[in-house]
Amino acid sequence: MAARTVKLAVIPGDGIGPEVVAEGLKVLSAVAPRHDLALDATEYELGAKRWHATGETLPDSVEEELRGHEAIFLGAVGDPSVPSGVLERGLLLRLRFNLSHYVNLRPVRLYPGVSTPLADAAPEDVDMLVVREGTEGPYAGMGGVLRKGTPGEIATQDSVNTRFGVERVVRYAFGKAAARPRKKLTLVHKDNVLTFAGELWQRVVREVGAEYSDVSVDYLHVDAASMFFVTQPRRFDVVVTDNLFGDIITDLGAAIAGGIGLAASGNINPEPEFPSMFEPVHGSAPDIAGQSKADPTATVLSAAIMLDHLGYADAARQVEQAVGEDLQARAKDATVRSTAQIGDDIAARVATQG
Amino acid sequence: MAARTVKLAVIPGDGIGPEVVAEGLKVLSAVAPRHDLALDATEYELGAKRWHATGETLPDSVEEELRGHEAIFLGAVGDPSVPSGVLERGLLLRLRFNLSHYVNLRPVRLYPGVSTPLADAAPEDVDMLVVREGTEGPYAGMGGVLRKGTPGEIATQDSVNTRFGVERVVRYAFGKAAARPRKKLTLVHKDNVLTFAGELWQRVVREVGAEYSDVSVDYLHVDAASMFFVTQPRRFDVVVTDNLFGDIITDLGAAIAGGIGLAASGNINPEPEFPSMFEPVHGSAPDIAGQSKADPTATVLSAAIMLDHLGYADAARQVEQAVGEDLQARAKDATVRSTAQIGDDIAARVATQG
Ligand SMILES: CC(C)[C@H](C(=O)O)[C@@H](O)C(=O)O
Ligand SMILES: CC(C)[C@H](C(=O)O)[C@@H](O)C(=O)O
Repeated sequence: MAARTVKLAVIPGDGIGPEVVAEGLKVLSAVAPRHDLALDATEYELGAKRWHATGETLPDSVEEELRGHEAIFLGAVGDPSVPSGVLERGLLLRLRFNLSHYVNLRPVRLYPGVSTPLADAAPEDVDMLVVREGTEGPYAGMGGVLRKGTPGEIATQDSVNTRFGVERVVRYAFGKAAARPRKKLTLVHKDNVLTFAGELWQRVVREVGAEYSDVSVDYLHVDAASMFFVTQPRRFDVVVTDNLFGDIITDLGAAIAGGIGLAASGNINPEPEFPSMFEPVHGSAPDIAGQSKADPTATVLSAAIMLDHLGYADAARQVEQAVGEDLQARAKDATVRSTAQIGDDIAARVATQG
Repeated sequence: MAARTVKLAVIPGDGIGPEVVAEGLKVLSAVAPRHDLALDATEYELGAKRWHATGETLPDSVEEELRGHEAIFLGAVGDPSVPSGVLERGLLLRLRFNLSHYVNLRPVRLYPGVSTPLADAAPEDVDMLVVREGTEGPYAGMGGVLRKGTPGEIATQDSVNTRFGVERVVRYAFGKAAARPRKKLTLVHKDNVLTFAGELWQRVVREVGAEYSDVSVDYLHVDAASMFFVTQPRRFDVVVTDNLFGDIITDLGAAIAGGIGLAASGNINPEPEFPSMFEPVHGSAPDIAGQSKADPTATVLSAAIMLDHLGYADAARQVEQAVGEDLQARAKDATVRSTAQIGDDIAARVATQG
């Protein structure tokens, strides 16, 4: 493969964000040269500090600059000093929406050696891929308030679901399911109550599914699915779902797969004209920020999803393998390592892999 | 206490509904006379069979008759032969909405001897009361479809939240929290994304909370709450939440507390002019219907919630104690019992309690 330079925008963000991003970059630096890949990283200071200083969450000019990159690597945004939602909507969701990250890809995989809160789950029981819609649903931000502050107050919140938006993510999910050994796709929704949106999702899954006769299709209400995540995780291979249901079940997925410290994600627009964005599922964890206590593994695994997306599948597998080895080593040696030590160890494994 | 006759409407419903309701009534018959309570039960045939025969889910005249009762005891509705949502919305949700069951009360309690999928949870770790709003939110049924069947199709689904509706359920939840030893209330929402509804819920909790200085208040996003149900169930005492979030987290609660076979609920309107409705959280389970395999315990525990609601707290505690004893006996003797045998055993325990 010819050497290639990828322009990477890095948004360390708030709390533990900068600490874990540093380790993600460390591991990327270890693996990239082995695949003739060079990363040209530019850091953007966005998040609580900037908001306090300037009132900006994401200036248009910065959004423009971000669009000039091939990928975005993000730590975490959010701080208790900023009103709830300001950074989430002004920065994170704005990027997901404006860059049309319609696939929010969240693998839920229990690595050998990792302890799970479930008594009976083994690694082979927990290996799914949640394809969460990322650009519509209740996240559209639509709705409003009438008669605020009076006894007659009404607040609405509208979920928006388009054929266009549902079809593109369902199509992506079928593609993923067809490429996995079990070839199973589960739609998670609540079509017995959310009848308008549910019927659209069901119909699109049926129609697109007709093109994938080798993929078996299942449907579960979100309440039942949540239960089965805990009682029968084995039921799930690829899961496709709405933005909000996906938010909930992927945190649940993180819980059963060893915790939020390991859960990776990609906000993906499969068309190359927009940069996709890769971030750990966890938040900024202000309570442990600056103490070198954060586990950078979720960020490192998000870097692996990024490598996959950029076309470096072998590099992605190497990073995942190094993480897997690190997690097994951890199971045998309970010595507490700092954020940087974990990054060093994974990077060293990557650098020396056969 | 003077003898009193309570007019009870019974809706056995579909699938395992009739089987479990029979056992609930059996246990009620065993406990009621000990408290000078007589139950005058009238059965209503509603559900899949009626819908197939007549196209009716809940005729107005039947709804009128139901209003003439003090309580409704329901098994389960729903059958694969009926399109998803028809019975749920036409019967179950219609009753919850028209009878203003604004409190959907769902205890999540791990009884000693019951096995949980969580590796490290003991009974004292899982003892919460979820107060789910029952008459608004995304369950309002509002929304619609535009350009159906075309590439430009849009389906919306609107969550409706009123000051009136949120305040009454939040007030109820604070009352419950104040009466429990831990006196803790957790609001579960997603206010960083569902900003209009979330801000209303937060504000109401703050305002009502000012009247309950002895109750400590916590807030969690629904994704984090779902994770903590699995990793730290101990965090929760009373939980108050929106209709849809409540649907999801109470199935999750059922999962961690030993399964859907044990999860009870009350659809409550605290004002006496409307009958409240008591039902197990599980559905009609058509796969095991008619086989005497269903566990009637959730229905029996729902009967206990009903007794509490009707003012027979001592009777409710007796039923719960009998269930507790039955569950502990089960842990020691794995003999599989039929639905009726479990009902017999619990009824016998109730009848002989000191
Ligand atoms: C921070 C928040 C807006 C975000 C979401 O709800 O999508 C987070 O929970 C996630 O899952 O990435
Ligand atoms: C059957 C369905 C409409 C119902 C709900 O969503 O409320 C059920 O899941 C429940 O939790 O009682």
